[in-house]
Amino acid sequence: MTTSPPARYDDLRALFLNCTLTPTPGFSHTQALMDRSIGLMRDVGVTVDVVRVVDHVVPPGVQPDMTAHGAERDDWPALQQRVLDADVLVLGTPIWLGDKSSECTRVVERLYGYSGETNDAGQYLYYGRVGGVVVTGNEDGVKHVAMSVLYSLQHLGYVVPPQADAGWIGEVGPGPSYGDRLDDGTVAGADSDFTERNLTFMTWNLLHLARMLKDAGGLPAHGNVRTAWDTGTRYGLHNPEYR
Amino acid sequence: MTTSPPARYDDLRALFLNCTLTPTPGFSHTQALMDRSIGLMRDVGVTVDVVRVVDHVVPPGVQPDMTAHGAERDDWPALQQRVLDADVLVLGTPIWLGDKSSECTRVVERLYGYSGETNDAGQYLYYGRVGGVVVTGNEDGVKHVAMSVLYSLQHLGYVVPPQADAGWIGEVGPGPSYGDRLDDGTVAGADSDFTERNLTFMTWNLLHLARMLKDAGGLPAHGNVRTAWDTGTRYGLHNPEYR
Amino acid sequence: MTTSPPARYDDLRALFLNCTLTPTPGFSHTQALMDRSIGLMRDVGVTVDVVRVVDHVVPPGVQPDMTAHGAERDDWPALQQRVLDADVLVLGTPIWLGDKSSECTRVVERLYGYSGETNDAGQYLYYGRVGGVVVTGNEDGVKHVAMSVLYSLQHLGYVVPPQADAGWIGEVGPGPSYGDRLDDGTVAGADSDFTERNLTFMTWNLLHLARMLKDAGGLPAHGNVRTAWDTGTRYGLHNPEYR
Amino acid sequence: MTTSPPARYDDLRALFLNCTLTPTPGFSHTQALMDRSIGLMRDVGVTVDVVRVVDHVVPPGVQPDMTAHGAERDDWPALQQRVLDADVLVLGTPIWLGDKSSECTRVVERLYGYSGETNDAGQYLYYGRVGGVVVTGNEDGVKHVAMSVLYSLQHLGYVVPPQADAGWIGEVGPGPSYGDRLDDGTVAGADSDFTERNLTFMTWNLLHLARMLKDAGGLPAHGNVRTAWDTGTRYGLHNPEYR
Repeated sequence: MTTSPPARYDDLRALFLNCTLTPTPGFSHTQALMDRSIGLMRDVGVTVDVVRVVDHVVPPGVQPDMTAHGAERDDWPALQQRVLDADVLVLGTPIWLGDKSSECTRVVERLYGYSGETNDAGQYLYYGRVGGVVVTGNEDGVKHVAMSVLYSLQHLGYVVPPQADAGWIGEVGPGPSYGDRLDDGTVAGADSDFTERNLTFMTWNLLHLARMLKDAGGLPAHGNVRTAWDTGTRYGLHNPEYR
Repeated sequence: MTTSPPARYDDLRALFLNCTLTPTPGFSHTQALMDRSIGLMRDVGVTVDVVRVVDHVVPPGVQPDMTAHGAERDDWPALQQRVLDADVLVLGTPIWLGDKSSECTRVVERLYGYSGETNDAGQYLYYGRVGGVVVTGNEDGVKHVAMSVLYSLQHLGYVVPPQADAGWIGEVGPGPSYGDRLDDGTVAGADSDFTERNLTFMTWNLLHLARMLKDAGGLPAHGNVRTAWDTGTRYGLHNPEYR
Repeated sequence: MTTSPPARYDDLRALFLNCTLTPTPGFSHTQALMDRSIGLMRDVGVTVDVVRVVDHVVPPGVQPDMTAHGAERDDWPALQQRVLDADVLVLGTPIWLGDKSSECTRVVERLYGYSGETNDAGQYLYYGRVGGVVVTGNEDGVKHVAMSVLYSLQHLGYVVPPQADAGWIGEVGPGPSYGDRLDDGTVAGADSDFTERNLTFMTWNLLHLARMLKDAGGLPAHGNVRTAWDTGTRYGLHNPEYR
Repeated sequence: MTTSPPARYDDLRALFLNCTLTPTPGFSHTQALMDRSIGLMRDVGVTVDVVRVVDHVVPPGVQPDMTAHGAERDDWPALQQRVLDADVLVLGTPIWLGDKSSECTRVVERLYGYSGETNDAGQYLYYGRVGGVVVTGNEDGVKHVAMSVLYSLQHLGYVVPPQADAGWIGEVGPGPSYGDRLDDGTVAGADSDFTERNLTFMTWNLLHLARMLKDAGGLPAHGNVRTAWDTGTRYGLHNPEYR
């Protein structure tokens, strides 16, 4: 039943943006889960970049560079370059009160700040890339957070592969977080077949779609070219009917 | 700036599931918006199937055929076949109180009822297909509904292309719905460049991804084969680290 | 530390609407959890009504009586009367794919179908009542479902007390549901201090707020009277400023 | 049809936390909408405090004071005192990509950082207070944002009155934001009967519930006392049944 990878991936680049609230060198449960996907990608040759966003100065706002709007310092433009260098983007976030972290919300806002820009084909800047999400918490909310993050990614222009989310939570209520060493010597979440399967399928589906898009030179530039739309091209859309 | 479609699409099949609460022959605003995408697809040769779910008897439950669990009649298994015949699935739904319709929720539940089944490659049944969503309302909620529907589709195994949602709402509060003829003779939503652009980009991106997947014979069966996973194949996932 | 109930509650009425997909006499995990709150309420004298919605014929739509719009039968108007007879409304729902059930979505739609009606004071029909939600699943989603249901209830006119949601899910992924007898003889969820505490606090906070509202004769009819608003009363709202 | 306020409110305090991304003195559309509610409250004697969060240094984290965890500066503890001084809390937020702002997400996280603390009666710290939300955007998402914020507030211990959210968005897609002066001299959102009504009803319902809670000396301390629960008081919760 074991198969070999159907392609090479050593020309692909991935960026994992960890949106934990805990700065380095604090332990990040989200990083612990992401590391398993990162290791797999590196094993098949992918160049993987990892950023813990909270270690950087990322002011609020939806302009590309917030120093042009009063911020003293803005590390985002440099991070944005690393986003654009990557074929695969994975956002990692903890859950707080059932929602993604404020760092993750800020990352989405800053990515959105470039959503008016286009690539050489006139498509939105993020076209031709794939995205996924990794979520950790100790209570509840993996799917809700994934809904929000994956929606944002596809809205920006990322392709979302099947089962592009993976996460772990314990039984409802407070308790250990992913990667915590428990009193009985086991590690929280380490025995979850569900989490491992989702993480594996997510990782491979990101690679498969990234491979397909890279081989195709991106998404075909027809029917989705913003610059052409703005000058009147309609690509065959039918006129509205009404009652 | 005008380009030609980069491929042929006449071997593709699409299914539009309209989850309006209004049975035929009542006017469906959601259908009015979907029809514009349907027309475009048909123009390029796609075989398009359209279902208004509320015209069928679809009992609640998450088993493939609810007549085996007490329901007197269940039209879903026949509809499920039409889902599986299609390379492209588009769910259409109105917004009620900021959420998708109960018909749409039911459709997701019934699709989920087959999520344990696998294709010939051992992948989840819906793999190799692409999905999108069309939303109409008169107040607020397109993005919230799209988050929920697109999340469900990718969770089931669909690929979600960039900008796979399109919708229309008017200014906040009660008002006309998409396709309503207004007093001044215009048609609600018909002049929305935003809605038209999203609908066009959604339609073409669905076609592009469906084309790529079809040409590739589906998603490569490596790293995502449920039957192999269940017999112990791990596809290179790294062991967990912990603190 | 033990205290006595600070009031009598035997003039209060509560309705628990169970939105499970499983008809009677099938076992409902949601009912199992709701029953613990119901028992507590009955012990202090509250008259509790319980409905399993799926046992009734509730067609889709947002009109008060769908038989006036083509439905052959509509049990909702009778259920609506039981809703209006109650000072406390608790919706119970399972989680499917991270969301509330289609039965629950339908109940919200049907409640919404009466949202244009007003009480004797000219306030929305549901004013003066309190609402809560009970959620069960085996994977993830209590908070997401609660967000949606509680939002709908307050939008309709219900007061939402503190911590008006209670639920149980197991560790992420498939597994037993609330109330399932496990192999080791224990019962899934029965040992969750978190679920028990939330259920207790929810129940009492519903009673406290219902008591306060009942004693006050409802919410004061000033600043919130729809009929007065529609005839021009503005209740002191300031004019807008702008830039 | 005009009525007089049924009570005095000059002993009440309200805090409006504006979670715009724009620092002072930039124009905040959210502030423009909140100001109308603030003006009404002040007219009836309420002491209103207003904070634009982005003007303060609020580091990420879920501990009460993040300077104890490595942050150089943390203005939140001082803001938290203003939160606790208020009987009414209103969060205001813009919409970005269909969601609340990162500033708003951060405020929720910081409020949550105190959720383990209790008042003199042993109840959660926020008990006895009421909460609401004001939302502005130019596209879509008022209800989705309100769901999230109101859920967080009730989870923390706030009472959520009927229709405790108000907001404005324009027709789907980019366009003017609330309070923008338009080319024809009118002001975006200023003519929205829906927004004005919601804002008025929200404001008065916040005052009514705050009045009731203040007069009652808070929520009765029975059935909801965390310190008593932790020492074994169960308040009559029924034992679980199972199948």
